[in-house]
Amino acid sequence: MDLLSQIGCRDWEEAGRKMHEFASELFPICRSITGDGIRQTLAMIGDRIPLEISSVPSGTEVFDWTVPKEWNIRDAFIQDARGQRVVDFRNCNLHVLNYSVPVHSTMPLEELRKHLFTIPEHHDWIPYRTSYYKPEWGFCLSHRQLESLRDGDYSVRIDSSLEDGRLNYGECYLRGRSSDEVLISVHACHPSLANDNLSGVVVSAFLAKALSGQELHYSYRFLFIPGTIGAITWLARNQERVQRIRHGLVLTCVGDSGGFHYKRSRRGDAEIDRAVAHVLRHCGESSEMLEFSPYGYDERQYCSPGFNLPVGCLMRSVWGSFPEYHTSADNLDFIKPQQLARTLRVCADTIDVLENNRRYVNQSPFCEPQLGKRGLYPSTGGAGLADALSARLWVLNLSDGQHSLLDIGERSGLPFSSIKEAADTLLAGGLLALSPERAEHSSDTA
Amino acid sequence: MDLLSQIGCRDWEEAGRKMHEFASELFPICRSITGDGIRQTLAMIGDRIPLEISSVPSGTEVFDWTVPKEWNIRDAFIQDARGQRVVDFRNCNLHVLNYSVPVHSTMPLEELRKHLFTIPEHHDWIPYRTSYYKPEWGFCLSHRQLESLRDGDYSVRIDSSLEDGRLNYGECYLRGRSSDEVLISVHACHPSLANDNLSGVVVSAFLAKALSGQELHYSYRFLFIPGTIGAITWLARNQERVQRIRHGLVLTCVGDSGGFHYKRSRRGDAEIDRAVAHVLRHCGESSEMLEFSPYGYDERQYCSPGFNLPVGCLMRSVWGSFPEYHTSADNLDFIKPQQLARTLRVCADTIDVLENNRRYVNQSPFCEPQLGKRGLYPSTGGAGLADALSARLWVLNLSDGQHSLLDIGERSGLPFSSIKEAADTLLAGGLLALSPERAEHSSDTA
Amino acid sequence: MDLLSQIGCRDWEEAGRKMHEFASELFPICRSITGDGIRQTLAMIGDRIPLEISSVPSGTEVFDWTVPKEWNIRDAFIQDARGQRVVDFRNCNLHVLNYSVPVHSTMPLEELRKHLFTIPEHHDWIPYRTSYYKPEWGFCLSHRQLESLRDGDYSVRIDSSLEDGRLNYGECYLRGRSSDEVLISVHACHPSLANDNLSGVVVSAFLAKALSGQELHYSYRFLFIPGTIGAITWLARNQERVQRIRHGLVLTCVGDSGGFHYKRSRRGDAEIDRAVAHVLRHCGESSEMLEFSPYGYDERQYCSPGFNLPVGCLMRSVWGSFPEYHTSADNLDFIKPQQLARTLRVCADTIDVLENNRRYVNQSPFCEPQLGKRGLYPSTGGAGLADALSARLWVLNLSDGQHSLLDIGERSGLPFSSIKEAADTLLAGGLLALSPERAEHSSDTA
Repeated sequence: MDLLSQIGCRDWEEAGRKMHEFASELFPICRSITGDGIRQTLAMIGDRIPLEISSVPSGTEVFDWTVPKEWNIRDAFIQDARGQRVVDFRNCNLHVLNYSVPVHSTMPLEELRKHLFTIPEHHDWIPYRTSYYKPEWGFCLSHRQLESLRDGDYSVRIDSSLEDGRLNYGECYLRGRSSDEVLISVHACHPSLANDNLSGVVVSAFLAKALSGQELHYSYRFLFIPGTIGAITWLARNQERVQRIRHGLVLTCVGDSGGFHYKRSRRGDAEIDRAVAHVLRHCGESSEMLEFSPYGYDERQYCSPGFNLPVGCLMRSVWGSFPEYHTSADNLDFIKPQQLARTLRVCADTIDVLENNRRYVNQSPFCEPQLGKRGLYPSTGGAGLADALSARLWVLNLSDGQHSLLDIGERSGLPFSSIKEAADTLLAGGLLALSPERAEHSSDTA
Repeated sequence: MDLLSQIGCRDWEEAGRKMHEFASELFPICRSITGDGIRQTLAMIGDRIPLEISSVPSGTEVFDWTVPKEWNIRDAFIQDARGQRVVDFRNCNLHVLNYSVPVHSTMPLEELRKHLFTIPEHHDWIPYRTSYYKPEWGFCLSHRQLESLRDGDYSVRIDSSLEDGRLNYGECYLRGRSSDEVLISVHACHPSLANDNLSGVVVSAFLAKALSGQELHYSYRFLFIPGTIGAITWLARNQERVQRIRHGLVLTCVGDSGGFHYKRSRRGDAEIDRAVAHVLRHCGESSEMLEFSPYGYDERQYCSPGFNLPVGCLMRSVWGSFPEYHTSADNLDFIKPQQLARTLRVCADTIDVLENNRRYVNQSPFCEPQLGKRGLYPSTGGAGLADALSARLWVLNLSDGQHSLLDIGERSGLPFSSIKEAADTLLAGGLLALSPERAEHSSDTA
Repeated sequence: MDLLSQIGCRDWEEAGRKMHEFASELFPICRSITGDGIRQTLAMIGDRIPLEISSVPSGTEVFDWTVPKEWNIRDAFIQDARGQRVVDFRNCNLHVLNYSVPVHSTMPLEELRKHLFTIPEHHDWIPYRTSYYKPEWGFCLSHRQLESLRDGDYSVRIDSSLEDGRLNYGECYLRGRSSDEVLISVHACHPSLANDNLSGVVVSAFLAKALSGQELHYSYRFLFIPGTIGAITWLARNQERVQRIRHGLVLTCVGDSGGFHYKRSRRGDAEIDRAVAHVLRHCGESSEMLEFSPYGYDERQYCSPGFNLPVGCLMRSVWGSFPEYHTSADNLDFIKPQQLARTLRVCADTIDVLENNRRYVNQSPFCEPQLGKRGLYPSTGGAGLADALSARLWVLNLSDGQHSLLDIGERSGLPFSSIKEAADTLLAGGLLALSPERAEHSSDTA
């Protein structure tokens, strides 16, 4: 796929830089699961790709859950006796407990302390805390700030509102030849945190942009949603669509310096699981496969037993396992342009596998066909040619209508791209025919 | 299960002590596969648990075998020329070859030697030897004793009888709600040997006692039998019952200081095999799983191809692999109260798995249910709570009617007790329903 | 099987020596895929075993290929200005590019160089090169020879012919009770190269000789063929026979000092794959199992998807992986009598498994039969007897009509010979009955 030109880049380095720039633009916004912050975020994504914004009223029942009231915040601070703001939302939006109810009061430090959150192990980092479903108020601050507070009275103010409103999410749908869908889902509800999950947001947006100009077999649905409640809301409102989802990925924490981690779907051996495993094996970076577990990000919902969708989760460092997770240290320096670019590439390569994972039937199945007389058996040649020949022999040998190109890639140890190229060459040479069935059965009725 | 109070103990230490005491009472008896010794043993077990004693006449054909004559012994010795007993049955019942035919004779040392057995590698240990099916007589003695014998004539006397009589075994049957059975089988035919198999006898007797006051799903059958011929006799007389056996364990050598060994059933993946593997993985002691082989103790008979029952064998040190095996060094010091107690606990935990290994169906299978509004999702909490939450999420995710609680325990890596507790909590909260089928299909018609 | 006497040998040492002698007789002949060289070779094999020679005209179409013109060569040399032969076919038949078109010309060294092949890493070795399907001429020489050539004109002469003729191959067919076949295939088209593949030729010829006097279940077909085109030609002319092939082996590079390598058939778990794995595990030499790949020797053709025959490839050092491969260093010193003998033994043991891999049904399946009363349960005994007893118990336990003797050998870890001996003993004792079906289903209609 001519992915780079589609996103207006000459090379992967530029793609990484541009993704990081977009993350930088989104970074300052104070997002939450509802409210102006996520709406503004969706609008900025919508400037780049075609995005349909949905709007669901507070109080709507979605399976076992209820869409909460909409939260907005204008200002928040703690002011000491001399009128000095010792904690100030204007400096960092992590300072306020996300979804804090309004408060306007004065109280002694002793009482205030119950509402303050710090990370004693990292003196200068501000933690990120939320209380979506239990009415609370609070401030997050660095441990150093906390230790500098003297006894006495403090004026505290959280100028927030929690009122009936809307929950919003964005969808970018790219129609392919088939109505079968590939789902890419990212949560876009965190305030100023870069790896979790502006990294996922920008990679997903650029991937959507890159695919939007392509001839595609599958239809693609990119979801930019609030975590948990957003996925639940989308699933509740799209139950009839869910059965079209053939493959899916949740992207989160994909910009840091760590190697890749892929958490398998609940099924464990879905085509997406095998495709990602294959791509990561050949991506040139360290990578690790993780078994499914029912905690994590929105794969929890997609893989709930009533849906059991083939959706895995691609990460670099695993959420919760790195110290910067859910702190102010997860900032724009923590994510690297090059890492974003490599993640984008892994996603694109995975989609390349899914799009092209066909089965073929060798038209000359009795003994090897004579490749030499067709110029397909190099009399001499370097390693490149040897690999190409090896791929051709593997494709011929296993193309019995039972083995997909991914099967052949796995068994041969050769990268999918080589296998695909061999199949194209042999197809052009009349030695293969395309099997009518895809690797996964599907209903091609777009 | 309130196991300890049922056996009248405050703690596991006391349980271990009481089992060791019972082993000490049984130790001096000269048992064999028939005769007064095993009858007396069964009587003493019957003082503690309800035991039905069966009595099968000598000469009865049981499959390919015949119940042998009954053997009894009153005295046996080797006397030197000065009338001194140099080997004396009254000192140790291992001194006589078990099932020796009577002898009353005088002979030179040269001839006597053919009937003497020692262990040259362990000068002070007396070996244990038998000759059940070939008429022989002989004495077992320490190598030191043998070396001290001077040339000359010796008077030898074995005051035994081998006559038509009876083979006896004991059964303790505890009726549960289902007529499906769990079989616990121990051989009780060895004379003064502690680990092999008074350890198995006392653990089995205490386990039966502990279960006798419980509400049980399965019915339980505890067999106290002579090795090999006893199992064969029981199977021959209970062929119609055999098909009710859903799970079974042979217990042997379960009191020594070694870690656990579990030999799988012939099937290899029976529920009992998986249950014991799970319990041992979490028991805090070292343990090893062994593949089935057709030698060992009575699992040989239960796993013969005509029956192929799901019966495994739980051991600590493996029979035949420790030097004390079948010698006088397998005495009351060789088995430890604490080890007996831990074995009892592993047996009880295994039964707990079998009793409670049900399948459930998540009643809110589309997305996760909102645990928070039910107080099941702790907003804060330590490791204990985190584990409980993890267990709840696993149970919800995998309760699709296909996965048993043991399946969930295996996949999650969490102990069965946590999984069971999570299922109980979720069932009480209306989030689960019990699947009508057990993990293993069964005919609940008790 | 009384294999050694059938080949007129007292011991394996003599068998190795005789095979090496036969290889020495065959070594000087200049073979190719057609022509007098392979015909002479087949004639010499035919002096030892009954061999039917087939003759297929040039131009015959065989699947996607065409039988090439016949190549013969009488002389070839490079002569310097002084009339001295600096490269001389009479010294070594590798000197001429195999299948060279005729040439008779004089040219400067500069131009000659394009037709010269050496191995710079091994100064004294002559490479082996071919150009079967592209008209070329050339000389192979040692790098030392090349470096000694001075500038100037050289007279070059290849007195070869490439004309319509015949492709020949030989078949030795041994009729067994069943028309189901075991195929042993070796390529016999290389000139003076010992390991590749005179080693395969002589082992195969001796194996055929050894089997020719035996009562056999399977029919055996030994193919001595030109590589690739020979296998393709045989398959094209025997399509109806192919379905009778139950098991097959390609033998190549089986005389060098290396340990064994066995490349599995495309199926990966065919009975031949399991049989060879079993035999190698117990053969006392190092060995390695390799997965199937679609390059190598004629297993490529037998395992093409249209046939997918259960044919693996037995090697010692793997073709292409040892420096002597396809050079003059693959000479008679490179193959060892002892190694040829051990390979022959592995082949014979494998055939022993295939011939005897039956299923049995325990006639006393409920509990163990009483082996003691039949003299099959030794009261005392050494390790040999213990192994025999162990084999008996395994055979009894697993003989439920589902497990073949090879299954039992694999599960028990005991060698097939012990399992077979136990089955014979138990069959004679009436404890087993032969299952009507072989391990592999077959049509016994010889």
